[in-house]
Amino acid sequence: MAQQREVFMEISPADFFYRNRDLAGFTNPSRAVYATIRELLENSLDACELHRIPPEIYIRLSQESSNDKAETYRIRIMDNGSGVPPEHIPSAFGQILYGSKYTLKQVRGTFGLGGKMAVLYGQITTHSSVHIISSTGTSRIYEFELMIDIQKNRPIIMKKDVKSNKDKWHGTIIEFTFEGDYTKAMAKIIEYMKQTAMVAPYANLTFIDPKGRLYRYTRITDKLPPPPDEILPHPYGVDVETIQRIINVTKCRDMLCFMTTHFHRVGKNTAEKFLEYAQLDGKTDPKRLTPDDSVALAQAMRNFPDFLPPDASCLSPIGRELLEAGIRKELNPDFIIVEQRKPAAYSGYPFIVEVGVAFGGEVPSKTGIALYRFANRIPLLYDESSDVAWKVANTKVNWRHYKVTPDMPIALIVHICSTKVPYKTVGKEFIADRPEVENEILRGVRNVSRRLRLFLSRKISIERERQRLNVFSRYLPKIAKFATELAEKEEEPDIKPLLGSIDRFRSFSENEEE
Amino acid sequence: MAQQREVFMEISPADFFYRNRDLAGFTNPSRAVYATIRELLENSLDACELHRIPPEIYIRLSQESSNDKAETYRIRIMDNGSGVPPEHIPSAFGQILYGSKYTLKQVRGTFGLGGKMAVLYGQITTHSSVHIISSTGTSRIYEFELMIDIQKNRPIIMKKDVKSNKDKWHGTIIEFTFEGDYTKAMAKIIEYMKQTAMVAPYANLTFIDPKGRLYRYTRITDKLPPPPDEILPHPYGVDVETIQRIINVTKCRDMLCFMTTHFHRVGKNTAEKFLEYAQLDGKTDPKRLTPDDSVALAQAMRNFPDFLPPDASCLSPIGRELLEAGIRKELNPDFIIVEQRKPAAYSGYPFIVEVGVAFGGEVPSKTGIALYRFANRIPLLYDESSDVAWKVANTKVNWRHYKVTPDMPIALIVHICSTKVPYKTVGKEFIADRPEVENEILRGVRNVSRRLRLFLSRKISIERERQRLNVFSRYLPKIAKFATELAEKEEEPDIKPLLGSIDRFRSFSENEEE
Repeated sequence: MAQQREVFMEISPADFFYRNRDLAGFTNPSRAVYATIRELLENSLDACELHRIPPEIYIRLSQESSNDKAETYRIRIMDNGSGVPPEHIPSAFGQILYGSKYTLKQVRGTFGLGGKMAVLYGQITTHSSVHIISSTGTSRIYEFELMIDIQKNRPIIMKKDVKSNKDKWHGTIIEFTFEGDYTKAMAKIIEYMKQTAMVAPYANLTFIDPKGRLYRYTRITDKLPPPPDEILPHPYGVDVETIQRIINVTKCRDMLCFMTTHFHRVGKNTAEKFLEYAQLDGKTDPKRLTPDDSVALAQAMRNFPDFLPPDASCLSPIGRELLEAGIRKELNPDFIIVEQRKPAAYSGYPFIVEVGVAFGGEVPSKTGIALYRFANRIPLLYDESSDVAWKVANTKVNWRHYKVTPDMPIALIVHICSTKVPYKTVGKEFIADRPEVENEILRGVRNVSRRLRLFLSRKISIERERQRLNVFSRYLPKIAKFATELAEKEEEPDIKPLLGSIDRFRSFSENEEE
Repeated sequence: MAQQREVFMEISPADFFYRNRDLAGFTNPSRAVYATIRELLENSLDACELHRIPPEIYIRLSQESSNDKAETYRIRIMDNGSGVPPEHIPSAFGQILYGSKYTLKQVRGTFGLGGKMAVLYGQITTHSSVHIISSTGTSRIYEFELMIDIQKNRPIIMKKDVKSNKDKWHGTIIEFTFEGDYTKAMAKIIEYMKQTAMVAPYANLTFIDPKGRLYRYTRITDKLPPPPDEILPHPYGVDVETIQRIINVTKCRDMLCFMTTHFHRVGKNTAEKFLEYAQLDGKTDPKRLTPDDSVALAQAMRNFPDFLPPDASCLSPIGRELLEAGIRKELNPDFIIVEQRKPAAYSGYPFIVEVGVAFGGEVPSKTGIALYRFANRIPLLYDESSDVAWKVANTKVNWRHYKVTPDMPIALIVHICSTKVPYKTVGKEFIADRPEVENEILRGVRNVSRRLRLFLSRKISIERERQRLNVFSRYLPKIAKFATELAEKEEEPDIKPLLGSIDRFRSFSENEEE
C-alpha cells in the first residue's frame, strides 16, 4: 500500500477563520469592505442600545493608497456607546471566540466573530495594527495598538496609553487599514445604512465615504426600544451538556430548587408537575444524577407538554410605531401598515416577527416585490433567495388574491428578533426556514396584505370614479354653456359646487386611517 | 445611563460549534442522522483513497431505545483505511480543530470538523462515550473509549487497550450512540449512498439500517483514481499572514530561493521576472523584509500576470470513464455523455469541473432537470437552489435550444474537485458562485448539451420514422392481400423483407457511439 504521510495538527480558532474567511463573509475585496463596515457598525449600535444611549455613530472610510495592484482603505468608527473595560480591550479585539455576546440575549452579534474578523482581515491584507480608544465613562481613556497572533489566537499589545477623561466621555473609537474595493461595494453599503436607519430611527449615523461624500441619517425620535434582557435557558432547548454544566455550578441541593433556579419560566408548580412526569424525586440531589439520569432528564424536558412558552419580555422588537416611522422616513410610501406578531418560540428560543407592507412613494417599482429583511435590527442584503422570508413571499403567498400585480411599487418588510436568530451562515446572510418562524412570517404577511387589499380596492375604485368625474368636468362647462344658450339666458349656472366633489377625490393619496 | 453588566468570556472552539451546531448541519434529529452517517463515511473514504486502498466500508445503524420522548441509535462504522496512529486517536476524535485535513490537498473533509461534531452530538444527546478501534497495519490494534471536554476542547480518555494484530489489519472502527430520527432521514440517506456509489464506483459499501434492511453498493472496478497530492500555496492566493509564516520558518537566505522553494509552480525564470516586477532584489534576505515589504510582496504576487496557472496534477477528478460507469450503474440511462473540463483556478486554488448529462432509463422524470451535485466526490443533497450548479442549470442555460422539454427524464451531473472547494457553509451543503467556477460549469453543460441535442434530434426523427413505418406495417399486409386479389393471383408477395427495415428502428434505444 502506497503510504502517504498524514500530518496531524491543531489549529487555533483564529487560524480556522483565517483559513475559511469566506464563512464569515470576507470573500473578496468588495465583500470585505461591506462586512467590515457592517460588523463594526453593528457592534457600535449594540454598545449603545444595551445601555439605552441614543446612538451617535460616525464612520469615515478614506483611501489610504491605490495603485494598479490593490486599493487600501483606512476605516475610523466612533460611537458613544458604553465603552469596553480596559482589561477586556486586547482580547475583545484581538482574540477570536472571546466576547460578551455568549449569553441568551437579543443582540446583533451572535457569534462574537465579526468585529475581530474585520481586524484580522485588515492585518492579513495590510499587516498593520488596529488602534483602539475607549472609555466606559470613568476618569480615564485607554488607548491600545494591537495585532493578532493568528496561530496562537492571542492579542499582541504593541502600545498602551492612558489619558485623563475630564468630560467623562464614554464610547469606542476603532481605526485600522485594510484592502478593499469600495467602488464595487458602494451601492450595497449605502443600502445597508439606509435600511439600518429604517429599523433604528433613534440613531444618528454619519458616513463619509472615500470620495468625501457625506451620508447622514438623522434620528427622528429619542425613544429607544426597551433593552433586551438576558434569560435563563428554556427547558425545551436544553441538552445533556447544558444540564451537566449547570450541575457543576449549581448550589441547589434538590431537584425542585434545581428546576426553579436554572430554567426559564419554571415555577414551583410547573417544576413539581414536571418532576412527576420525569419520574424524578424532587428531593434528589442534582449532583447525584447519573449520566443516564441526565439523558432522561434532557429528554423529558423536551417532551413535557406543560412548560410555559418562553417569555418574550426579554426581546426588544422595534414596535409598530417606530418601524412605521422608520419606513416612512426612508421610503415615504402612500400606504403603509405594520403588524407585530405575538411572541412565539422554536426549540426553546423566543422570537417575535414584525411585518410591514408599503405601497407607492419611493418604494422601488421593479418587477416583483421589494423585500426588506431584518434580524435583530440588522438589514440582511445578501443571498436573498435562501432566506425564509423570500420563501414565504415568493412561494407561499398568492399575491393576486390581494390585488397585487407585479408592476406595483410594493415593499415587504420582515423583522425577526430572537435571543438566537437561526442564521445558516456565520456571515449572517440569511435565516433558516424553521417551521415556527416560517409560519409566523406567513401569518403576518397575510394580515398586512389583507389591509393592503382594502387600500388597493379603494384606490382602484376611486381611480375609476376619478376618471369618470374627469370626463364630467371636461364636459360640464360646455353643457352649462349649451344649456344656457338653449334656455336663452345670459348667466350660466354655477358649476363650481359640482366640480368640488371631484377635488375630494384628487386628494386621495394619503394613508387610509383606521 | 442604565448600566447593564456585560460579561466577557472566552469560549473554546468545541463550545462554539456546540452552541452553533446548526452551522455544521446538526440542526435537528433527522439532519443529525444524515450528517453523522455522511461525515463518518466521508472520513472513511478519505482514509482509504489517500492510501490507494479500494474502500470496503461497513455501516450499521441500530435502534438503541425508543420511547415517546426520543429515539436513540447506535452507529458502527468500519473501514479498511490507513488507520489513525495511536498517539493521534484521542485528539483526532475528541478535539475540534485538530486533524490531518489542514493541508492544500483534495480531500472530502475541509474543515476537520464533521466527524468530531458527530461524536460531540452523540455525547450531548446521550452522554455516552465513543469507542474507537484502529490500527495502521502494525503489530498492534489500539482501542480507546473517549469523551470530549467541550468547555476545554480536550479529549477525556475513559479507557485504553492494546491488542495484538496478527493479521496486520488496518482500518478504523467507530461506535457510539446518539439521538436521531432515522424514519425522516431515510430517503436522503439512501439517496446519499446511491450517489456516493455513483462517484466512487471502486468502493464496496454495506449499510444495515435500523429495520435490519441491507443496502449493498458493490464496486464495479478496482481502479482507483490517482491520489491527490499536497501542493505549495500558489502566489495568487497568498496574503501577508502566509508570507510572514513562511518567513518565520524558511531556511532560504535570499528572495530567489524563497520564491522558488515555497510557492507553487515558481521556477527560477518566473521568480526572476517576478522579483523584477515587484522591484525586489533577488539577493535580499527574506528575514529582513519589513512589514511594508511583505504587504507590497503579497500585492505584487496577486497582480503579477506571468505566474503559471496552478497545476491540476495535484487534483484527482473521477475521470470520464469512471464517472460514466458510475452513472450507468445507478441510473442505467439510454444516453449518457460526460465531459471533463480542463483545469482552471480561482484565487490560486486549482479546480476541475466534470459534467455529465443522462437521458432515460432510471433517470427520474419529474418536472425539470434532476441535478446531481458533487464536490470532491461528496454528493450534495441539501439547499440545492443556493448552489452554483443550480444557478447555471436554471438561469444560464436555455434548455429548449437543446431540444429538452420539462417532461423529459434528464439528469445533469456536476462534479467539482479542488484543493479548496468554495463551500458557503461549514455543513458543506452548497458551493459559492465564484465566477471562474460558474463559467467552467456553464461551458461544460453547454458542451454535453450539444451532444444531447444530437441524440434527441435523432431520437425524434427516428420516432417519427417509426410511427410512419408502424402505419405502413399495419396496412402493408392488407395492401398485399388486396393487390393479390386484384391481380387474381393465389399467392401473396413476401412482405417480410419490407417489414424488416422497421425492426431496424425498433432497436434504437442504445447510446449513440462517437
